[in-house]
Amino acid sequence: MEFRRLTEADVPAYLQSIPAMRERFSDFDDLEVTEVGDGNLNFVYLVSNRRQPSETVVLKQAVPYLRVVGESWPLTRHRMDIETAALRHFRALCPQHVPEVFHGDADLSACVMERLGTHRILRGALMDGHTFENVADHLSTFMAQSLFYGSDLYLGFDAKKEAVKQYTNIELCKITEDLIFTHPYDDSATNAYNTALAREAIDGIQRNPLVRAAVGELKYAFMTRAETLLHGDLHVGSVMVNAQETFVIDPEFAFYGPMGFDVGILLANFFLAWHGQEARGGASAIATQGWLLETAAQCWDQFADKFMTLWQQQEKDGQGFTGRDLDGLSAQAFRESFMRRLWNDSLGFAGCEMVRRVLGLAKVAEIAGIEDPQTRAKAEVAALRMAKRLLLQRHEVSSMAQVLDWVRA
Amino acid sequence: MEFRRLTEADVPAYLQSIPAMRERFSDFDDLEVTEVGDGNLNFVYLVSNRRQPSETVVLKQAVPYLRVVGESWPLTRHRMDIETAALRHFRALCPQHVPEVFHGDADLSACVMERLGTHRILRGALMDGHTFENVADHLSTFMAQSLFYGSDLYLGFDAKKEAVKQYTNIELCKITEDLIFTHPYDDSATNAYNTALAREAIDGIQRNPLVRAAVGELKYAFMTRAETLLHGDLHVGSVMVNAQETFVIDPEFAFYGPMGFDVGILLANFFLAWHGQEARGGASAIATQGWLLETAAQCWDQFADKFMTLWQQQEKDGQGFTGRDLDGLSAQAFRESFMRRLWNDSLGFAGCEMVRRVLGLAKVAEIAGIEDPQTRAKAEVAALRMAKRLLLQRHEVSSMAQVLDWVRA
Repeated sequence: MEFRRLTEADVPAYLQSIPAMRERFSDFDDLEVTEVGDGNLNFVYLVSNRRQPSETVVLKQAVPYLRVVGESWPLTRHRMDIETAALRHFRALCPQHVPEVFHGDADLSACVMERLGTHRILRGALMDGHTFENVADHLSTFMAQSLFYGSDLYLGFDAKKEAVKQYTNIELCKITEDLIFTHPYDDSATNAYNTALAREAIDGIQRNPLVRAAVGELKYAFMTRAETLLHGDLHVGSVMVNAQETFVIDPEFAFYGPMGFDVGILLANFFLAWHGQEARGGASAIATQGWLLETAAQCWDQFADKFMTLWQQQEKDGQGFTGRDLDGLSAQAFRESFMRRLWNDSLGFAGCEMVRRVLGLAKVAEIAGIEDPQTRAKAEVAALRMAKRLLLQRHEVSSMAQVLDWVRA
Repeated sequence: MEFRRLTEADVPAYLQSIPAMRERFSDFDDLEVTEVGDGNLNFVYLVSNRRQPSETVVLKQAVPYLRVVGESWPLTRHRMDIETAALRHFRALCPQHVPEVFHGDADLSACVMERLGTHRILRGALMDGHTFENVADHLSTFMAQSLFYGSDLYLGFDAKKEAVKQYTNIELCKITEDLIFTHPYDDSATNAYNTALAREAIDGIQRNPLVRAAVGELKYAFMTRAETLLHGDLHVGSVMVNAQETFVIDPEFAFYGPMGFDVGILLANFFLAWHGQEARGGASAIATQGWLLETAAQCWDQFADKFMTLWQQQEKDGQGFTGRDLDGLSAQAFRESFMRRLWNDSLGFAGCEMVRRVLGLAKVAEIAGIEDPQTRAKAEVAALRMAKRLLLQRHEVSSMAQVLDWVRA
């Protein structure tokens, strides 16, 4: 079928043409179709049967350009093939935290998936003062499973290299390379600065050779280290929650990259939310702030434990990544050195994410939504200070407690 | 054309069928064809016209198995596509140091290339007591050009990722993963130990958790860090020389890997040759030994200079890998941090190569050719001691002078 962009009016007939949808919907005569894509890339339709509201799906379609800009920024629709494949891959590993794909359509670059009816985006929920006791447990499980099972620590030498090829995601990686690792540092015209943010604070990042060298190392790692299939955009806007459940969505940036990237982006978003709350002040902010730091710490600690457990189980016959473990100590020595590097990487990528959310094009609502520019600048300065520490001291700091002290500083 | 293995008798008619060969040979009636493949993988024919000896080529053919073992070790012929593409790529970058490919034949997995008539393999020439004053200059040029121009420091974000896919070399990487990074360490049955080598020396590598963790890190780097198109097997048996010229041959192991791998393999082979000469003793050995260390040092120093120069030229408008250089110091700060990491990586990979040439399956003639097992063990023990230092102290040592002190220790 030739590509065409679906409209709300097209959706019922399109769904009816899909066998899997004819099993899911009792009829297609009275569907409610609402376009809700608030992202920058794609069109997203919520579809439900007014006669049977439990019959509901999400339809996502990629168009051959960047939606937020328009046809002047072409972007191949191949990204939807990658997103669909990544969703299925993550779902197979972690069914409790990834929505089910019902139908993938390469011709129309569309994907029909499970509707998370009672869940909302974590970022917005946190801003409204809600907290969720299972999020650290769930996200650490998602990261441990997804990062471990896509890597050379688990996959055969051949399957992993084929997967690297399959998930080559040139255009979306380029967006990250530019918007996270380059533009925020070189005073690019795409940046957006708070007018109340002192030039000194901006220069402290952009004209600091040590910061720039550290970011260069992390950009180079992002571009060269094909460690595992990453989500690629694992911030709190890519997570949906209710009181019981946590789902990770929107893996269109998935590619083979360094494990610390997913971990670092997530940690940074908790820290950024903390700085936003700190500047806003008030009693409800204080309660959320405690939860944010505790959750960040638990995300790392539980991730590291779960990742290590998966790895130890994988190598329990003494035959592992480094070969047979002759003295009973060597495999563990490598695992510990591996986890130290992953920790250092995660802190560095967290620093990059914090800088770009302050200086770069894409902001986080927790800070960008602060109306008073002076108050906003307070949060931004604190976030940049924290980011600089993460970038420059990522190899020295060994405990999350010390990182949390930096946040509170 | 369907695949068939060429025999010496087939070669004249095969060459005559190739238009480029009809330009190169005045006739095909009296060709001398000699099979000389002494490697483990392929068949190699030297072909010359007895009536016009200047009309001469090399024909190389891959068979769908590992030649040294036979049809019981299948290996796809795809490796010849990679070797041919890599030869053409390296030749385009460095015509003075890479033989010309006249014809590549994907159907027969064959490649016809320039015959280096007056050149011989560097390893054998060194063992015969010859030294070559241009080798460090030439090999450092080859490494600087090949490692720089295949990387993200030069190629566009898209061309590099496409190249990673093109050069995915699953089977030959697996050989390296096993024979360099795994088997020498886990007392594999494929290892071959000198009976006079004390078990203590072997255990000092295989049962040392710090060594095993370091090798694990380097194996993981080899498998995940897609930095540039490597030669992949750059030892002194892959180099042909005469008094004036130096050529790099046999890039069948080419793939996108960490830059330090090529550099480290080369350095290690000079060090191994030194240890072989040291154990053999004698006046001619002493002369060669001085040349070996000087050449190793010059290879690194000149490589680092040339690589840095290419990079600075590439970024001379202030727009580089890390973005616009606002303070005039940041780009250089990143380059220096990059070169430190590359140096550390190179030392680590050199350590891996030295261990595997002593404990593993494939030896170097400089040491393996020492007839007396006790004398051979002396060289092996010294090489293992050196390798251990390279593996464990690669992050601390900052000068080649110190590394050379270790060799002489």
